[in-house]
Amino acid sequence: MTQSVIELLKQHRSIRKFTDQPVPQDCVEQLIEAGQAAATSSFIQACTVIQVNDPTKRTALASYAGNQAYVASAPVFLVFCADMHRHQRICEWHQAEMLSGFTEQFITATVDCALFAQNSAIAAESLGMGVVYIGGLRNQIEQVSELLQLPELVYPVFGMCIGYPDQNPEIKPRLPLSVVLKQDVYEDKQDLAAIEAYDEAVRHYYQTRTGGKKVMGWSDQISAMLVKEARPHMLDYLQGQGFLKR
Amino acid sequence: MTQSVIELLKQHRSIRKFTDQPVPQDCVEQLIEAGQAAATSSFIQACTVIQVNDPTKRTALASYAGNQAYVASAPVFLVFCADMHRHQRICEWHQAEMLSGFTEQFITATVDCALFAQNSAIAAESLGMGVVYIGGLRNQIEQVSELLQLPELVYPVFGMCIGYPDQNPEIKPRLPLSVVLKQDVYEDKQDLAAIEAYDEAVRHYYQTRTGGKKVMGWSDQISAMLVKEARPHMLDYLQGQGFLKR
Repeated sequence: MTQSVIELLKQHRSIRKFTDQPVPQDCVEQLIEAGQAAATSSFIQACTVIQVNDPTKRTALASYAGNQAYVASAPVFLVFCADMHRHQRICEWHQAEMLSGFTEQFITATVDCALFAQNSAIAAESLGMGVVYIGGLRNQIEQVSELLQLPELVYPVFGMCIGYPDQNPEIKPRLPLSVVLKQDVYEDKQDLAAIEAYDEAVRHYYQTRTGGKKVMGWSDQISAMLVKEARPHMLDYLQGQGFLKR
Repeated sequence: MTQSVIELLKQHRSIRKFTDQPVPQDCVEQLIEAGQAAATSSFIQACTVIQVNDPTKRTALASYAGNQAYVASAPVFLVFCADMHRHQRICEWHQAEMLSGFTEQFITATVDCALFAQNSAIAAESLGMGVVYIGGLRNQIEQVSELLQLPELVYPVFGMCIGYPDQNPEIKPRLPLSVVLKQDVYEDKQDLAAIEAYDEAVRHYYQTRTGGKKVMGWSDQISAMLVKEARPHMLDYLQGQGFLKR
Protein backbone atom coordinates (compact mmCIF):
# COMPACT_ATOMS: atom_id res chain seq x y z
CA MET A 1 0.00 0.00 0.00
CA THR A 2 1.53 3.25 -1.06
CA GLN A 3 -1.51 5.41 -0.41
CA SER A 4 -1.66 6.97 3.04
CA VAL A 5 -4.64 6.28 5.29
CA ILE A 6 -5.53 9.98 5.31
CA GLU A 7 -5.59 9.94 1.50
CA LEU A 8 -7.95 6.98 1.66
CA LEU A 9 -10.26 8.77 4.10
CA LYS A 10 -10.32 11.89 1.98
CA GLN A 11 -11.27 9.94 -1.12
CA HIS A 12 -14.58 8.82 0.33
CA ARG A 13 -17.70 9.27 -1.76
CA SER A 14 -20.92 7.34 -1.58
CA ILE A 15 -21.15 4.45 -4.04
CA ARG A 16 -24.62 3.49 -5.22
CA LYS A 17 -23.75 1.31 -8.22
CA PHE A 18 -21.86 -1.92 -7.77
CA THR A 19 -20.32 -4.53 -10.07
CA ASP A 20 -21.49 -8.15 -9.86
CA GLN A 21 -18.30 -9.15 -8.09
CA PRO A 22 -19.42 -10.87 -4.89
CA VAL A 23 -17.99 -10.04 -1.48
CA PRO A 24 -16.95 -13.30 0.22
CA GLN A 25 -18.43 -13.87 3.67
CA ASP A 26 -15.01 -13.99 5.35
CA CYS A 27 -14.46 -10.52 3.98
CA VAL A 28 -17.75 -9.31 5.48
CA GLU A 29 -16.62 -10.77 8.79
CA GLN A 30 -13.35 -8.87 8.53
CA LEU A 31 -15.31 -5.64 8.13
CA ILE A 32 -17.35 -6.46 11.22
CA GLU A 33 -14.25 -7.25 13.25
CA ALA A 34 -12.74 -3.95 12.14
CA GLY A 35 -15.96 -2.29 13.31
CA GLN A 36 -15.77 -3.96 16.69
CA ALA A 37 -12.26 -2.60 17.19
CA ALA A 38 -13.59 0.98 17.37
CA ALA A 39 -13.81 2.72 20.74
CA THR A 40 -16.93 1.87 22.74
CA SER A 41 -18.35 4.04 25.51
CA SER A 42 -17.62 2.45 28.92
CA PHE A 43 -16.97 -0.83 27.06
CA ILE A 44 -20.71 -1.12 26.43
CA GLN A 45 -20.42 -2.65 22.92
CA ALA A 46 -23.94 -1.64 22.00
CA CYS A 47 -23.85 -2.29 18.25
CA THR A 48 -25.42 -5.31 16.57
CA VAL A 49 -25.23 -5.74 12.81
CA ILE A 50 -27.87 -7.57 10.83
CA GLN A 51 -26.65 -8.76 7.44
CA VAL A 52 -29.66 -9.03 5.16
CA ASN A 53 -29.32 -11.67 2.44
CA ASP A 54 -32.93 -12.76 1.83
CA PRO A 55 -34.01 -11.16 -1.48
CA THR A 56 -37.59 -10.61 -0.31
CA LYS A 57 -36.40 -8.77 2.77
CA ARG A 58 -33.96 -6.76 0.65
CA THR A 59 -36.72 -5.67 -1.71
CA ALA A 60 -38.89 -4.64 1.21
CA LEU A 61 -36.02 -2.66 2.78
CA ALA A 62 -35.30 -0.90 -0.53
CA SER A 63 -38.92 0.19 -0.63
CA TYR A 64 -39.01 1.25 3.05
CA ALA A 65 -35.89 3.36 2.43
CA GLY A 66 -37.77 5.38 -0.18
CA ASN A 67 -37.17 3.18 -3.23
CA GLN A 68 -33.40 3.04 -3.15
CA ALA A 69 -32.92 0.13 -5.55
CA TYR A 70 -29.29 -0.42 -4.55
CA VAL A 71 -30.47 -1.55 -1.11
CA ALA A 72 -31.90 -4.59 -2.90
CA SER A 73 -29.11 -5.09 -5.41
CA ALA A 74 -25.87 -4.32 -3.53
CA PRO A 75 -23.68 -7.39 -2.95
CA VAL A 76 -23.84 -6.82 0.82
CA PHE A 77 -26.40 -4.97 2.90
CA LEU A 78 -25.87 -4.43 6.61
CA VAL A 79 -28.21 -2.86 9.15
CA PHE A 80 -26.39 -1.28 12.10
CA CYS A 81 -28.55 -1.45 15.20
CA ALA A 82 -28.11 0.32 18.52
CA ASP A 83 -28.66 -2.55 20.91
CA MET A 84 -29.32 -2.43 24.65
CA HIS A 85 -31.46 -5.55 24.57
CA ARG A 86 -28.33 -7.62 25.01
CA HIS A 87 -27.57 -5.66 28.16
CA GLN A 88 -31.08 -6.16 29.48
CA ARG A 89 -30.74 -9.93 29.09
CA ILE A 90 -27.38 -9.82 30.84
CA CYS A 91 -28.87 -7.91 33.74
CA GLU A 92 -31.67 -10.48 34.06
CA TRP A 93 -29.08 -13.24 33.96
CA HIS A 94 -27.16 -11.54 36.80
CA GLN A 95 -30.43 -10.81 38.64
CA ALA A 96 -29.74 -7.09 38.43
CA GLU A 97 -32.46 -4.57 37.70
CA MET A 98 -31.43 -2.52 34.70
CA LEU A 99 -32.48 1.12 34.69
CA SER A 100 -33.28 1.77 31.06
CA GLY A 101 -34.78 4.54 28.96
CA PHE A 102 -32.18 7.21 29.78
CA THR A 103 -31.35 9.65 27.00
CA GLU A 104 -27.69 9.14 27.88
CA GLN A 105 -27.97 5.44 27.04
CA PHE A 106 -29.53 6.34 23.71
CA ILE A 107 -26.57 8.60 22.95
CA THR A 108 -23.92 6.05 23.89
CA ALA A 109 -25.60 3.24 21.95
CA THR A 110 -26.08 5.45 18.87
CA VAL A 111 -22.51 6.73 18.98
CA ASP A 112 -21.19 3.18 19.49
CA CYS A 113 -22.99 2.14 16.31
CA ALA A 114 -21.66 5.05 14.29
CA LEU A 115 -18.03 4.50 15.34
CA PHE A 116 -18.39 0.78 14.58
CA ALA A 117 -19.94 1.43 11.16
CA GLN A 118 -17.36 4.01 10.19
CA ASN A 119 -14.59 1.53 10.92
CA SER A 120 -16.37 -1.04 8.76
CA ALA A 121 -16.80 1.53 5.97
CA ILE A 122 -13.12 2.44 6.01
CA ALA A 123 -12.10 -1.20 6.11
CA ALA A 124 -14.26 -1.84 3.03
CA GLU A 125 -12.83 1.16 1.20
CA SER A 126 -9.30 0.06 2.06
CA LEU A 127 -10.06 -3.21 0.24
CA GLY A 128 -11.20 -1.36 -2.88
CA MET A 129 -14.92 -1.56 -2.14
CA GLY A 130 -17.38 1.30 -1.94
CA VAL A 131 -20.19 1.96 0.51
CA VAL A 132 -23.23 4.13 1.02
CA TYR A 133 -24.97 4.75 4.34
CA ILE A 134 -28.74 4.30 4.19
CA GLY A 135 -30.37 6.67 6.69
CA GLY A 136 -33.55 6.20 4.68
CA LEU A 137 -34.22 3.07 6.75
CA ARG A 138 -35.57 5.50 9.33
CA ASN A 139 -38.36 6.55 6.92
CA GLN A 140 -40.39 3.49 7.83
CA ILE A 141 -38.47 2.44 10.87
CA GLU A 142 -41.39 0.59 12.44
CA GLN A 143 -41.70 -1.68 9.39
CA VAL A 144 -37.93 -2.20 9.24
CA SER A 145 -37.94 -3.24 12.89
CA GLU A 146 -40.74 -5.73 12.33
CA LEU A 147 -39.07 -7.19 9.26
CA LEU A 148 -35.82 -7.75 11.15
CA GLN A 149 -37.66 -8.87 14.30
CA LEU A 150 -35.94 -6.31 16.48
CA PRO A 151 -36.84 -6.69 20.15
CA GLU A 152 -37.29 -3.85 22.64
CA LEU A 153 -34.19 -1.70 23.25
CA VAL A 154 -32.89 -2.22 19.70
CA TYR A 155 -33.28 0.26 16.84
CA PRO A 156 -31.81 0.39 13.33
CA VAL A 157 -29.63 3.50 13.17
CA PHE A 158 -28.84 3.13 9.46
CA GLY A 159 -28.08 0.59 6.78
CA MET A 160 -25.02 0.25 4.57
CA CYS A 161 -24.63 -1.06 1.01
CA ILE A 162 -21.22 -2.55 0.28
CA GLY A 163 -19.64 -3.82 -2.92
CA TYR A 164 -17.14 -3.12 -5.67
CA PRO A 165 -17.81 0.29 -7.30
CA ASP A 166 -19.28 0.43 -10.78
CA GLN A 167 -19.20 4.22 -10.83
CA ASN A 168 -16.64 6.86 -10.00
CA PRO A 169 -18.41 9.93 -8.63
CA GLU A 170 -16.51 13.08 -7.80
CA ILE A 171 -15.72 13.88 -4.18
CA LYS A 172 -18.22 16.36 -2.74
CA PRO A 173 -16.57 19.51 -1.41
CA ARG A 174 -16.85 20.05 2.36
CA LEU A 175 -17.35 23.19 4.45
CA PRO A 176 -14.31 25.45 4.87
CA LEU A 177 -12.10 24.44 7.78
CA SER A 178 -12.70 27.78 9.54
CA VAL A 179 -16.40 26.93 9.80
CA VAL A 180 -15.97 23.52 11.42
CA LEU A 181 -12.86 24.08 13.57
CA LYS A 182 -13.03 26.67 16.35
CA GLN A 183 -10.48 27.68 18.97
CA ASP A 184 -11.42 27.61 22.69
CA VAL A 185 -14.97 28.88 22.23
CA TYR A 186 -17.80 28.64 19.73
CA GLU A 187 -17.40 31.74 17.59
CA ASP A 188 -19.20 32.06 14.26
CA LYS A 189 -19.06 35.71 13.23
CA GLN A 190 -17.19 34.97 10.00
CA ASP A 191 -19.10 31.81 9.13
CA LEU A 192 -21.79 33.14 6.83
CA ALA A 193 -19.25 34.84 4.58
CA ALA A 194 -17.26 31.62 4.40
CA ILE A 195 -20.42 29.64 3.65
CA GLU A 196 -21.33 32.04 0.86
CA ALA A 197 -18.00 31.31 -0.84
CA TYR A 198 -18.48 27.60 -0.20
CA ASP A 199 -21.91 27.71 -1.86
CA GLU A 200 -20.10 28.64 -5.07
CA ALA A 201 -17.86 25.58 -4.83
CA VAL A 202 -20.90 23.36 -4.27
CA ARG A 203 -22.73 24.88 -7.24
CA HIS A 204 -19.67 24.19 -9.36
CA TYR A 205 -19.59 20.59 -8.14
CA TYR A 206 -23.20 20.00 -9.15
CA GLN A 207 -22.71 21.76 -12.48
CA THR A 208 -19.83 19.43 -13.31
CA ARG A 209 -21.51 16.30 -12.02
CA THR A 210 -25.02 16.70 -13.29
CA GLY A 211 -24.28 18.64 -16.47
CA GLY A 212 -26.24 21.61 -15.18
CA LYS A 213 -29.42 19.73 -14.18
CA LYS A 214 -29.10 20.32 -10.43
CA VAL A 215 -27.34 23.57 -9.62
CA MET A 216 -27.61 24.40 -5.96
CA GLY A 217 -25.31 25.70 -3.31
CA TRP A 218 -25.09 24.16 0.13
CA SER A 219 -26.97 26.70 2.21
CA ASP A 220 -30.00 26.80 -0.11
CA GLN A 221 -30.25 22.98 -0.04
CA ILE A 222 -30.04 22.98 3.74
CA SER A 223 -32.62 25.70 4.25
CA ALA A 224 -35.00 24.04 1.76
CA MET A 225 -34.68 20.78 3.69
CA LEU A 226 -35.10 22.24 7.15
CA VAL A 227 -38.41 23.97 6.55
CA LYS A 228 -39.90 20.46 6.37
CA GLU A 229 -40.67 18.07 9.20
CA ALA A 230 -37.91 15.54 9.85
CA ARG A 231 -39.30 12.02 10.28
CA PRO A 232 -41.78 13.18 12.94
CA HIS A 233 -42.60 9.56 13.92
CA MET A 234 -39.14 9.03 15.39
CA LEU A 235 -39.71 9.94 19.05
CA ASP A 236 -42.86 7.80 19.37
CA TYR A 237 -41.15 4.88 17.71
CA LEU A 238 -38.06 5.12 19.90
CA GLN A 239 -40.07 5.44 23.10
CA GLY A 240 -42.04 2.39 21.98
CA GLN A 241 -38.71 0.54 21.73
CA GLY A 242 -37.85 1.62 25.28
CA PHE A 243 -35.50 4.52 24.47
CA LEU A 244 -35.62 8.23 25.37
CA LYS A 245 -38.14 7.86 28.17
CA ARG A 246 -36.26 10.09 30.61
CA MET B 1 3.11 1.85 4.69
CA THR B 2 3.29 -1.88 4.89
CA GLN B 3 0.60 -2.30 7.54
CA SER B 4 -2.90 -2.77 6.15
CA VAL B 5 -5.64 -0.34 7.12
CA ILE B 6 -7.62 -3.15 8.74
CA GLU B 7 -4.58 -4.03 10.86
CA LEU B 8 -4.40 -0.38 11.93
CA LEU B 9 -8.09 -0.34 12.88
CA LYS B 10 -7.77 -3.56 14.86
CA GLN B 11 -4.85 -2.20 16.84
CA HIS B 12 -6.90 0.56 18.42
CA ARG B 13 -6.72 0.99 22.15
CA SER B 14 -7.37 4.13 24.18
CA ILE B 15 -4.24 6.11 24.99
CA ARG B 16 -4.35 8.16 28.19
CA LYS B 17 -0.64 8.93 28.61
CA PHE B 18 1.19 11.04 26.06
CA THR B 19 4.80 12.07 25.46
CA ASP B 20 5.73 15.77 25.40
CA GLN B 21 6.06 15.70 21.62
CA PRO B 22 3.79 18.45 20.34
CA VAL B 23 1.29 17.95 17.53
CA PRO B 24 1.76 20.74 14.97
CA GLN B 25 -1.35 22.73 14.11
CA ASP B 26 -1.23 21.75 10.43
CA CYS B 27 -1.40 18.17 11.59
CA VAL B 28 -4.50 18.91 13.69
CA GLU B 29 -6.02 20.49 10.61
CA GLN B 30 -5.29 17.35 8.61
CA LEU B 31 -7.18 15.31 11.19
CA ILE B 32 -10.14 17.66 10.92
CA GLU B 33 -10.13 17.50 7.13
CA ALA B 34 -10.04 13.72 7.36
CA GLY B 35 -13.04 13.96 9.69
CA GLN B 36 -14.94 16.15 7.27
CA ALA B 37 -14.47 13.57 4.52
CA ALA B 38 -16.72 11.10 6.36
CA ALA B 39 -20.25 10.50 5.12
CA THR B 40 -22.79 13.08 6.30
CA SER B 41 -26.53 12.48 6.44
CA SER B 42 -28.26 14.38 3.59
CA PHE B 43 -25.08 16.48 3.29
CA ILE B 44 -26.01 18.19 6.56
CA GLN B 45 -22.42 18.54 7.88
CA ALA B 46 -23.59 18.96 11.45
CA CYS B 47 -20.28 18.58 13.28
CA THR B 48 -18.27 21.46 14.71
CA VAL B 49 -15.00 20.84 16.53
CA ILE B 50 -13.72 23.09 19.28
CA GLN B 51 -10.01 22.76 19.88
CA VAL B 52 -9.31 23.75 23.47
CA ASN B 53 -5.86 25.23 24.06
CA ASP B 54 -6.40 27.58 26.98
CA PRO B 55 -4.88 25.86 30.07
CA THR B 56 -7.54 27.21 32.42
CA LYS B 57 -10.31 25.84 30.23
CA ARG B 58 -8.49 22.53 29.94
CA THR B 59 -8.21 22.21 33.71
CA ALA B 60 -11.90 22.97 34.07
CA LEU B 61 -12.81 20.38 31.41
CA ALA B 62 -10.63 17.75 33.09
CA SER B 63 -12.52 18.34 36.30
CA TYR B 64 -15.96 18.36 34.60
CA ALA B 65 -15.08 15.03 32.98
CA GLY B 66 -14.65 13.43 36.39
CA ASN B 67 -11.02 14.35 37.05
CA GLN B 68 -9.46 12.87 33.98
CA ALA B 69 -6.07 14.60 34.19
CA TYR B 70 -5.12 13.75 30.60
CA VAL B 71 -7.88 16.08 29.39
CA ALA B 72 -5.73 18.89 30.78
CA SER B 73 -2.33 17.50 29.81
CA ALA B 74 -2.82 15.90 26.36
CA PRO B 75 -1.05 17.76 23.53
CA VAL B 76 -4.38 18.23 21.73
CA PHE B 77 -7.89 18.26 23.10
CA LEU B 78 -10.88 18.45 20.77
CA VAL B 79 -14.57 18.73 21.61
CA PHE B 80 -16.86 17.29 18.93
CA CYS B 81 -20.15 19.15 18.92
CA ALA B 82 -23.39 18.23 17.17
CA ASP B 83 -24.30 21.56 15.60
CA MET B 84 -27.61 22.65 14.10
CA HIS B 85 -27.08 26.27 15.12
CA ARG B 86 -25.23 26.81 11.86
CA HIS B 87 -28.30 25.56 10.00
CA GLN B 88 -30.58 27.83 11.96
CA ARG B 89 -28.49 30.85 10.98
CA ILE B 90 -28.54 29.74 7.35
CA CYS B 91 -32.31 29.43 7.43
CA GLU B 92 -32.61 32.94 8.86
CA TRP B 93 -30.26 34.20 6.17
CA HIS B 94 -32.48 32.59 3.51
CA GLN B 95 -35.61 33.81 5.29
CA ALA B 96 -36.76 30.24 5.75
CA GLU B 97 -38.41 29.03 8.94
CA MET B 98 -36.47 26.07 10.25
CA LEU B 99 -38.48 23.37 12.00
CA SER B 100 -36.18 22.27 14.79
CA GLY B 101 -36.34 20.01 17.81
CA PHE B 102 -37.06 16.76 15.93
CA THR B 103 -35.55 13.60 17.39
CA GLU B 104 -34.52 12.68 13.85
CA GLN B 105 -32.35 15.80 13.63
CA PHE B 106 -30.74 14.89 16.93
CA ILE B 107 -29.87 11.46 15.54
CA THR B 108 -28.41 12.76 12.27
CA ALA B 109 -26.33 15.44 14.01
CA THR B 110 -25.04 12.99 16.62
CA VAL B 111 -24.20 10.35 14.01
CA ASP B 112 -22.51 12.98 11.81
CA CYS B 113 -20.28 13.89 14.74
CA ALA B 114 -19.38 10.31 15.50
CA LEU B 115 -18.46 9.46 11.89
CA PHE B 116 -16.39 12.64 11.68
CA ALA B 117 -14.59 11.93 14.95
CA GLN B 118 -13.85 8.33 14.06
CA ASN B 119 -12.19 9.46 10.84
CA SER B 120 -10.11 11.95 12.82
CA ALA B 121 -9.18 9.22 15.31
CA ILE B 122 -8.09 6.84 12.57
CA ALA B 123 -6.14 9.58 10.82
CA ALA B 124 -4.31 10.32 14.08
CA GLU B 125 -3.54 6.65 14.67
CA SER B 126 -2.29 6.29 11.11
CA LEU B 127 0.28 9.00 11.91
CA GLY B 128 1.49 7.13 14.99
CA MET B 129 -0.56 9.09 17.49
CA GLY B 130 -2.99 7.71 20.07
CA VAL B 131 -6.41 8.98 21.13
CA VAL B 132 -9.03 8.54 23.81
CA TYR B 133 -12.66 9.57 23.54
CA ILE B 134 -13.93 11.54 26.53
CA GLY B 135 -17.63 10.81 27.02
CA GLY B 136 -17.14 12.10 30.56
CA LEU B 137 -17.72 15.63 29.20
CA ARG B 138 -21.39 14.72 29.46
CA ASN B 139 -21.07 14.43 33.27
CA GLN B 140 -21.33 18.19 33.65
CA ILE B 141 -22.50 19.02 30.19
CA GLU B 142 -24.18 22.26 31.20
CA GLN B 143 -20.89 23.63 32.56
CA VAL B 144 -18.97 22.41 29.52
CA SER B 145 -21.44 24.21 27.26
CA GLU B 146 -21.08 27.45 29.19
CA LEU B 147 -17.30 27.24 29.19
CA LEU B 148 -17.21 26.79 25.41
CA GLN B 149 -20.02 29.33 24.88
CA LEU B 150 -22.14 26.87 22.94
CA PRO B 151 -25.29 28.48 21.54
CA GLU B 152 -28.70 26.83 21.24
CA LEU B 153 -28.81 23.77 18.95
CA VAL B 154 -25.22 22.78 19.73
CA TYR B 155 -24.17 20.10 22.23
CA PRO B 156 -20.80 18.51 23.01
CA VAL B 157 -21.12 14.83 22.11
CA PHE B 158 -17.67 13.89 23.43
CA GLY B 159 -14.11 15.11 23.67
CA MET B 160 -10.93 13.53 22.35
CA CYS B 161 -7.35 13.63 23.67
CA ILE B 162 -4.70 13.26 20.98
CA GLY B 163 -0.94 12.91 21.17
CA TYR B 164 1.99 10.54 20.84
CA PRO B 165 1.56 7.50 23.10
CA ASP B 166 3.66 7.15 26.22
CA GLN B 167 2.08 3.82 27.10
CA ASN B 168 1.36 0.63 25.26
CA PRO B 169 -1.82 -0.93 26.66
CA GLU B 170 -3.07 -4.30 25.47
CA ILE B 171 -5.96 -4.44 23.05
CA LYS B 172 -9.23 -5.15 24.86
CA PRO B 173 -10.96 -8.28 23.58
CA ARG B 174 -14.32 -7.71 21.88
CA LEU B 175 -17.57 -9.70 21.89
CA PRO B 176 -17.63 -12.89 19.79
CA LEU B 177 -18.59 -12.26 16.18
CA SER B 178 -21.68 -14.46 16.51
CA VAL B 179 -23.07 -12.06 19.11
CA VAL B 180 -22.71 -8.89 17.05
CA LEU B 181 -23.37 -10.19 13.52
CA LYS B 182 -26.80 -11.69 12.76
CA GLN B 183 -28.26 -13.03 9.52
CA ASP B 184 -31.59 -11.66 8.23
CA VAL B 185 -33.25 -11.32 11.63
CA TYR B 186 -32.33 -10.51 15.21
CA GLU B 187 -31.80 -13.89 16.83
CA ASP B 188 -30.01 -14.20 20.16
CA LYS B 189 -30.72 -17.68 21.51
CA GLN B 190 -27.04 -18.64 21.61
CA ASP B 191 -25.75 -15.28 22.82
CA LEU B 192 -25.63 -15.82 26.57
CA ALA B 193 -23.51 -18.95 26.20
CA ALA B 194 -21.14 -17.07 23.91
CA ILE B 195 -20.99 -14.16 26.36
CA GLU B 196 -20.18 -16.52 29.21
CA ALA B 197 -17.13 -17.76 27.31
CA TYR B 198 -16.22 -14.18 26.42
CA ASP B 199 -16.37 -13.19 30.10
CA GLU B 200 -13.47 -15.57 30.66
CA ALA B 201 -11.39 -13.82 27.99
CA VAL B 202 -12.13 -10.44 29.55
CA ARG B 203 -11.20 -11.70 33.02
CA HIS B 204 -7.92 -12.94 31.58
CA TYR B 205 -7.28 -9.55 29.95
CA TYR B 206 -7.74 -7.71 33.26
CA GLN B 207 -5.65 -10.26 35.12
CA THR B 208 -2.76 -9.69 32.70
CA ARG B 209 -3.17 -5.93 32.56
CA THR B 210 -3.77 -5.08 36.20
CA GLY B 211 -1.72 -7.83 37.81
CA GLY B 212 -4.85 -9.29 39.39
CA LYS B 213 -6.20 -6.05 40.92
CA LYS B 214 -9.31 -5.81 38.75
CA VAL B 215 -10.64 -9.16 37.70
CA MET B 216 -14.05 -8.87 36.11
CA GLY B 217 -15.78 -10.32 33.13
CA TRP B 218 -17.76 -8.26 30.68
CA SER B 219 -21.29 -9.12 31.67
CA ASP B 220 -20.76 -8.48 35.39
CA GLN B 221 -19.26 -5.04 34.63
CA ILE B 222 -22.19 -4.20 32.39
CA SER B 223 -24.85 -5.31 34.82
CA ALA B 224 -23.14 -3.47 37.70
CA MET B 225 -23.12 -0.30 35.58
CA LEU B 226 -26.71 -0.53 34.38
CA VAL B 227 -28.36 -0.74 37.78
CA LYS B 228 -27.32 2.89 38.19
CA GLU B 229 -28.86 5.99 36.68
CA ALA B 230 -27.13 7.15 33.49
CA ARG B 231 -26.54 10.92 33.51
CA PRO B 232 -30.19 11.64 34.31
CA HIS B 233 -29.74 15.37 33.56
CA MET B 234 -29.25 14.70 29.85
CA LEU B 235 -32.80 15.05 28.53
CA ASP B 236 -33.46 18.34 30.35
CA TYR B 237 -30.15 19.73 29.17
CA LEU B 238 -30.72 18.72 25.54
CA GLN B 239 -34.25 20.08 25.48
CA GLY B 240 -32.86 23.31 26.92
CA GLN B 241 -30.48 23.40 23.95
CA GLY B 242 -33.42 22.97 21.57
CA PHE B 243 -33.04 19.23 20.85
CA LEU B 244 -35.42 16.28 21.36
CA LYS B 245 -38.54 18.38 21.75
CA ARG B 246 -40.66 16.23 19.45
